Amino acid sequence: MIPNVLAERYASSAIQSIWSAEGRIVLEREFWIAVMKAQKDLGLDIPQGAIDAYESVKDRVDTASIMERERITRHDVKARIEEFNELAGHEQVHKGMTSRDLTENVEQLQVYRSLLVLRDRSVATLARMSKRSAQWADLVITARTHNVAAQPTTFGKRLSMFGEEMLSAHQALESLISSYAVRGLKGAVGTQMDQLSLFEGDASKVAELERKVVAHLGMPAVWTNVGQVYPRSLDMRTVSTLVDLASGPSSMAKTLRLMAGHETASEGFAPGQTGSSAMPHKMNSRSCERVNGFHLILRGHLTMASGLAGDQWNEGDVSCSVVRRVMLPDAFYACDGMFETFLTVLDQMDSYPAVIAKENTHYLPFLMTTTIMMEAVKAGVGRETAHKAIKEHAVATVNDLRQGKVGHNDLVARLADDDRLPLDEQQLKAIVAQGEANAGAAASQLQHFGAEVAKLTAAHPDAAAYTPGSIL
Amino acid sequence: MIPNVLAERYASSAIQSIWSAEGRIVLEREFWIAVMKAQKDLGLDIPQGAIDAYESVKDRVDTASIMERERITRHDVKARIEEFNELAGHEQVHKGMTSRDLTENVEQLQVYRSLLVLRDRSVATLARMSKRSAQWADLVITARTHNVAAQPTTFGKRLSMFGEEMLSAHQALESLISSYAVRGLKGAVGTQMDQLSLFEGDASKVAELERKVVAHLGMPAVWTNVGQVYPRSLDMRTVSTLVDLASGPSSMAKTLRLMAGHETASEGFAPGQTGSSAMPHKMNSRSCERVNGFHLILRGHLTMASGLAGDQWNEGDVSCSVVRRVMLPDAFYACDGMFETFLTVLDQMDSYPAVIAKENTHYLPFLMTTTIMMEAVKAGVGRETAHKAIKEHAVATVNDLRQGKVGHNDLVARLADDDRLPLDEQQLKAIVAQGEANAGAAASQLQHFGAEVAKLTAAHPDAAAYTPGSIL
Amino acid sequence: MIPNVLAERYASSAIQSIWSAEGRIVLEREFWIAVMKAQKDLGLDIPQGAIDAYESVKDRVDTASIMERERITRHDVKARIEEFNELAGHEQVHKGMTSRDLTENVEQLQVYRSLLVLRDRSVATLARMSKRSAQWADLVITARTHNVAAQPTTFGKRLSMFGEEMLSAHQALESLISSYAVRGLKGAVGTQMDQLSLFEGDASKVAELERKVVAHLGMPAVWTNVGQVYPRSLDMRTVSTLVDLASGPSSMAKTLRLMAGHETASEGFAPGQTGSSAMPHKMNSRSCERVNGFHLILRGHLTMASGLAGDQWNEGDVSCSVVRRVMLPDAFYACDGMFETFLTVLDQMDSYPAVIAKENTHYLPFLMTTTIMMEAVKAGVGRETAHKAIKEHAVATVNDLRQGKVGHNDLVARLADDDRLPLDEQQLKAIVAQGEANAGAAASQLQHFGAEVAKLTAAHPDAAAYTPGSIL
Amino acid sequence: MIPNVLAERYASSAIQSIWSAEGRIVLEREFWIAVMKAQKDLGLDIPQGAIDAYESVKDRVDTASIMERERITRHDVKARIEEFNELAGHEQVHKGMTSRDLTENVEQLQVYRSLLVLRDRSVATLARMSKRSAQWADLVITARTHNVAAQPTTFGKRLSMFGEEMLSAHQALESLISSYAVRGLKGAVGTQMDQLSLFEGDASKVAELERKVVAHLGMPAVWTNVGQVYPRSLDMRTVSTLVDLASGPSSMAKTLRLMAGHETASEGFAPGQTGSSAMPHKMNSRSCERVNGFHLILRGHLTMASGLAGDQWNEGDVSCSVVRRVMLPDAFYACDGMFETFLTVLDQMDSYPAVIAKENTHYLPFLMTTTIMMEAVKAGVGRETAHKAIKEHAVATVNDLRQGKVGHNDLVARLADDDRLPLDEQQLKAIVAQGEANAGAAASQLQHFGAEVAKLTAAHPDAAAYTPGSIL
Repeated sequence: MIPNVLAERYASSAIQSIWSAEGRIVLEREFWIAVMKAQKDLGLDIPQGAIDAYESVKDRVDTASIMERERITRHDVKARIEEFNELAGHEQVHKGMTSRDLTENVEQLQVYRSLLVLRDRSVATLARMSKRSAQWADLVITARTHNVAAQPTTFGKRLSMFGEEMLSAHQALESLISSYAVRGLKGAVGTQMDQLSLFEGDASKVAELERKVVAHLGMPAVWTNVGQVYPRSLDMRTVSTLVDLASGPSSMAKTLRLMAGHETASEGFAPGQTGSSAMPHKMNSRSCERVNGFHLILRGHLTMASGLAGDQWNEGDVSCSVVRRVMLPDAFYACDGMFETFLTVLDQMDSYPAVIAKENTHYLPFLMTTTIMMEAVKAGVGRETAHKAIKEHAVATVNDLRQGKVGHNDLVARLADDDRLPLDEQQLKAIVAQGEANAGAAASQLQHFGAEVAKLTAAHPDAAAYTPGSIL
Repeated sequence: MIPNVLAERYASSAIQSIWSAEGRIVLEREFWIAVMKAQKDLGLDIPQGAIDAYESVKDRVDTASIMERERITRHDVKARIEEFNELAGHEQVHKGMTSRDLTENVEQLQVYRSLLVLRDRSVATLARMSKRSAQWADLVITARTHNVAAQPTTFGKRLSMFGEEMLSAHQALESLISSYAVRGLKGAVGTQMDQLSLFEGDASKVAELERKVVAHLGMPAVWTNVGQVYPRSLDMRTVSTLVDLASGPSSMAKTLRLMAGHETASEGFAPGQTGSSAMPHKMNSRSCERVNGFHLILRGHLTMASGLAGDQWNEGDVSCSVVRRVMLPDAFYACDGMFETFLTVLDQMDSYPAVIAKENTHYLPFLMTTTIMMEAVKAGVGRETAHKAIKEHAVATVNDLRQGKVGHNDLVARLADDDRLPLDEQQLKAIVAQGEANAGAAASQLQHFGAEVAKLTAAHPDAAAYTPGSIL
Repeated sequence: MIPNVLAERYASSAIQSIWSAEGRIVLEREFWIAVMKAQKDLGLDIPQGAIDAYESVKDRVDTASIMERERITRHDVKARIEEFNELAGHEQVHKGMTSRDLTENVEQLQVYRSLLVLRDRSVATLARMSKRSAQWADLVITARTHNVAAQPTTFGKRLSMFGEEMLSAHQALESLISSYAVRGLKGAVGTQMDQLSLFEGDASKVAELERKVVAHLGMPAVWTNVGQVYPRSLDMRTVSTLVDLASGPSSMAKTLRLMAGHETASEGFAPGQTGSSAMPHKMNSRSCERVNGFHLILRGHLTMASGLAGDQWNEGDVSCSVVRRVMLPDAFYACDGMFETFLTVLDQMDSYPAVIAKENTHYLPFLMTTTIMMEAVKAGVGRETAHKAIKEHAVATVNDLRQGKVGHNDLVARLADDDRLPLDEQQLKAIVAQGEANAGAAASQLQHFGAEVAKLTAAHPDAAAYTPGSIL
Repeated sequence: MIPNVLAERYASSAIQSIWSAEGRIVLEREFWIAVMKAQKDLGLDIPQGAIDAYESVKDRVDTASIMERERITRHDVKARIEEFNELAGHEQVHKGMTSRDLTENVEQLQVYRSLLVLRDRSVATLARMSKRSAQWADLVITARTHNVAAQPTTFGKRLSMFGEEMLSAHQALESLISSYAVRGLKGAVGTQMDQLSLFEGDASKVAELERKVVAHLGMPAVWTNVGQVYPRSLDMRTVSTLVDLASGPSSMAKTLRLMAGHETASEGFAPGQTGSSAMPHKMNSRSCERVNGFHLILRGHLTMASGLAGDQWNEGDVSCSVVRRVMLPDAFYACDGMFETFLTVLDQMDSYPAVIAKENTHYLPFLMTTTIMMEAVKAGVGRETAHKAIKEHAVATVNDLRQGKVGHNDLVARLADDDRLPLDEQQLKAIVAQGEANAGAAASQLQHFGAEVAKLTAAHPDAAAYTPGSIL
């Protein structure tokens, strides 16, 4: 059998078990049983013995047998009804129901439970990001914009930046979870006609039946006006939230790949790992690259999900069927695999203060040019004048360094010599010296992030303590 | 000049004015002035006369002159600083600021104000959907799944189905608006280093400065840990919400195009409109087709937005710049144009009860087969047996109708003749007769939608009363 | 194990076997052996006994054992080298090679062979489209634009329209196949440094080695300037070609779904198939819906593929790895599954001439309005005048029909009564009568398509004769 | 008026003029005139005076007047017919034509001409890439995979790698151009019914009319079986080719951004350019970032284009209309703007040999480890043993360098001291010394690229000589 790569290589067992064929069939059977119980409670003539019979066989899942039936009926739900009926020796399930009364609700249950798993992984990830941010709160690094040295920051602040992005996505996830609505028992075109027939037109019984069934599912809300299916824009919202959730980690992974190129940090390596079969010295950012890969996979799923939204014909069609069969589990496998990988990175990553210090020294006079400019302005020069003078010297220094004409960054001396600027070498050196530890508000900013995460981990201590499995 | 088609052909003036070059420059100047005022309040030496001078020229926008400057500096913000300074005769703006301290905040303001406009359009749309749903609450139609006649529903219920989808997206929009966070004054790499220098390291003053500036902008939240830019996943979340918002309308538009093919409904036509230059009888669903087109355009923008998310290097780069310059305004133009078009459809659409009645009559015995089956089961036959018998006759009737062997749907007679089924012709006719008005719970469902919308319109009466401009 | 749904439910065995884990490992081992043989031929000291030993174990694939090794090394290629070496009892494979010298070439071989399979499926599909087109060459139907009755055409012409679209994509596929270039043996960064070392700097031997290896692979071209990997835009081009190939079938499937709604055609049904477990009369276009679903899945893969293109860092990275591991096989499974499904539709589809005739009769006077207008113009009226008069009556007739005011299309009588138009009832009736069989150039157009396909099937008779497996 | 940002800020005049409103209207009028002339030639009664009158006013384009008409008719083509007729004082245009007979052909002409422009830009780009590649043919740099130092290559080879990728896309573009098929004069549903009526059923005249009209357009092929519109998969193929074309440049731009971070190369700067208004020393890779941005924009357009393909209803609808109105010109503006930007980068870019040399020295012993390993194997050690020993020392050296324990790369000494390896310090030093100039086959590879480009530039000397405009 050809395995699902995302599930088998990357996803954790928590997500696998939600989406496995066997797991799903059990969920469906439990759903049918819940419906039968509720129907019986509300007066339908369903023998308790039948319900007991179904209960007793619900875990006997033979996917090959079901597949055999489907090859004949070319209808997957009918195949599963027949199988369950034959196992139990009754014909009581699926009463007054249409296929989608079963499949929509069960698939939404899979989605919902997966969202809860990812919520927990998100908490675990934020906890680690906060921990790493605190660990390197005082490690001053050269911040880069456009990939070019800009000003000082700290490694901790850099991490909390990605962390806060993810925290924002986490809140979007929480918002989705708390408003996630299930389709309910609505019948073939959404009017509940068949359940109303079953209950001789008693609308209150039909409403109560749905209430009980939704309670069984445990989701926070239920749609009122649907057709055969719930709106596919909800799937789009779901997949979009997964992309959102993966974005902070993906940006951080990309930045770690850049830092690895400068040897200022690395994702770390597990014992026994071979970076490259050919080049022994290489320690590749393969997990970070993978995190970026997962982000792109999710964006592909988002194209699929957004292509389903807004394309509903009348009360619904199933051009979405094969798409959702692939996209929904795969998006969760990918996002879960992303978390497994990224958590491992967070656990194993390392920084190299000696290399960082060297880089800081090299760039420091440049990093402080805005401060120098402002001090010059305070000392009476116009902003544009100061900018022009500093720029001339900065560019010349850059060029001389690049051409090997000077061996170290001598910008300070050049500025001190320029009459347009009122600052002498001593003043300039003082500014640069201050800069060595000057990451502005970085420290208090990252503390703010830590405090936010602390609230979250206090609320979800088990989730925060999650340890990823061993990744490939 | 080559115009922006989305803006000029489709978008309303409310959105156009937010994103016009002139409008943006004024927003920027107001932002600079707000910063100067706050800086002065907090003790910086900025002459009141300078502020007054800037104020007096802020509306003098000469885009050609600015473009000329940009051609020299190849830096758009620097060009705009120079222009503003020269107009005012001072050099006081942009103090302690980096380009992104200006542009990020102003662009977010444009996004935020656009979201508020769309929120209002969404309310107007929901109000009309509810009105149309109520208007056709009792008009029974043949519901279709897989585009094939299935069971009865009402046209009102069909519309409320799309309406409730949109209501859900509306709530997602409200959630985005209420949590939308602005970047704030964070400096070149997010550490506020230059503002701290300006205020001699006084962190409380810097915090107060940002507070004042954010208050000027009027957005509900502010990021703490950012780099040069705010996280691009926020743009992704924004565009994703627009796709979400367009999905209910898009599905309804697609369904109206299908109904037009059956002549059961149409989007209506304005006086003077020519459906086709060549075929005089044609009345095309061009506005509905356009709504579907806008949905696809937005999905293209979503690809752009999701491609920016998770791709941030270090403290930020500007590979996003050209993308956001195109994608952000265009996504709002497209979504706004979608609303203008769809509101027009809602105002002009029509249904054709005579054609609908003919369709119902043709299909009614089929539409009631589930009820017939359930009644047969109640009368003692097994579900699978009843299904088999009814299926045989139904399929035979379908085939005979399609081949012209019978002139009308005679399923009832066939079922009455079948000994496997315990129902006689009278009983069967009674079931079908009931079906003529049997749309199950449709009526109460759409009332639920109407009640939800009523709360919304009560809260936003002006928004609900919006009338779209005349569309092309 | 969680199966790959696309592979297991939808793809044919031809594609499955190319992409199965076992199949791939054998391809790799054959590749290593080809390299060893060539290296030996060119003078490297590789014992024949070693090559024989590798040959004798190449089909002994134990994926579990390999996975176990990978869990330790966290390097998939190294794991497979170790396994193969241990099986053979030698350490001769992978000499002078880097991982990508193996994996790139083997993956491209998988892609190339899959393209050849799809080329054959495409031929089979075109053959059937041509056959169906010829079958219904004279069946006049009501052509629709904007989903509204427009003019007469034939069902055969309609099908040849989708066929010619696919023929064009087929030619694009042929163009891709004939230019498909493999990476070759280029070493870790593309400079062949290690192979040059192996051969003591003898460039001609290295070139000859690559020539032999490419000959083993059988692809038509080889890249010269690559880094670690071949350019990912080639993957994008590949996936884009698959979307292209699926577009004609997808449009035709969508149109069949529309026709099913009017009961003018259907995709047909296999014996035993249950359209719906609840509604016995329903015969749903599930296969056509599935074809549309596959198209969307492929578009998701295109987002993934295009997100890899243009994102290469230096000589290459592996952020593409997880993406290609999912996207490449899945895209081929989806496209192949699309063909299996669509071929089944083509084999089983049906048309309903009685329903078609009824629709034609209903619309015919409308369909001929352009002809009436032109005849009126020939008889001396201005085009705009004729258009105006005809439009008035056509719109009035449409409205009266829709409101049930008239029982049949009486446009001819209305036009005959209008003094602005010079045509009398007899002339008008003659025009309409001609129209009954007037599909313009449809017949010769579809013959042209048939002739083009005939050339193709003559060139590929076996491919044309392919019969799809039984679909679910 | 709100301008189209892509057109106005980035695209060249060559592309702007093809897609401007005025330019398009003239193309349409020329098309109508060509049709009238051919119709007259083939016997239709069209006065020469009318044709002359149309000719004389064809350049009098008043877009405001046309827009005014469209606001009334809500039909864009009808508005343009009325305008042209009124200007000429005749009613002879558009005879036997439907709107799409005009618009499809003219839009395809715009696409085709744009493809020719981009073909020329592509030649110009390849010419420059080849020139730069030759310029730096001998500049040895540290090749990187996974962004980590791997082996030596040359800067020239690195550039030719991106060049060859683009050359391959160029060939795909040529293939598209040479097979690009226009819809032709096919009538409202593709059957040419109205033209057949015009010519009293004379099919040969209708065929001849189309031949003449296609000759006027100048495209290489024509569709036979179409409906109202040509297949939208052709647009998808077109946009996909643009993404393809932008991929080599995008990867090279990304790599230049990475190199800028290491200061080994830069995109260069124009005189007067300000890298950053705040940080005077910064020289940002803004043009390279923009090239990457354009690639993403094009991918968004690809989502739009692929969403149109496979979604045709019957003989065609216009849900594609608004999408194509935006996507087609914008995709060409974006791709053209990409070329303008990238050509500028190619003209201004620079490398920094001193910095490169320093990097090489730092990494050289690592870069040669595969060679060392192979020499060790030749000297009798097993591959795995050698790999293990070298890996131990390489990793230890990396770690010591990162932690500042050693000041320079002392791997050679460590390896010399290890008894497991048979190479002494002198032998090792010799290997490393060779490596300093060892870029393997890089030189001959890039010559191959240069030779291919030389053929192209010889065939298109004017295109090769193109100089981009001044970019913002």
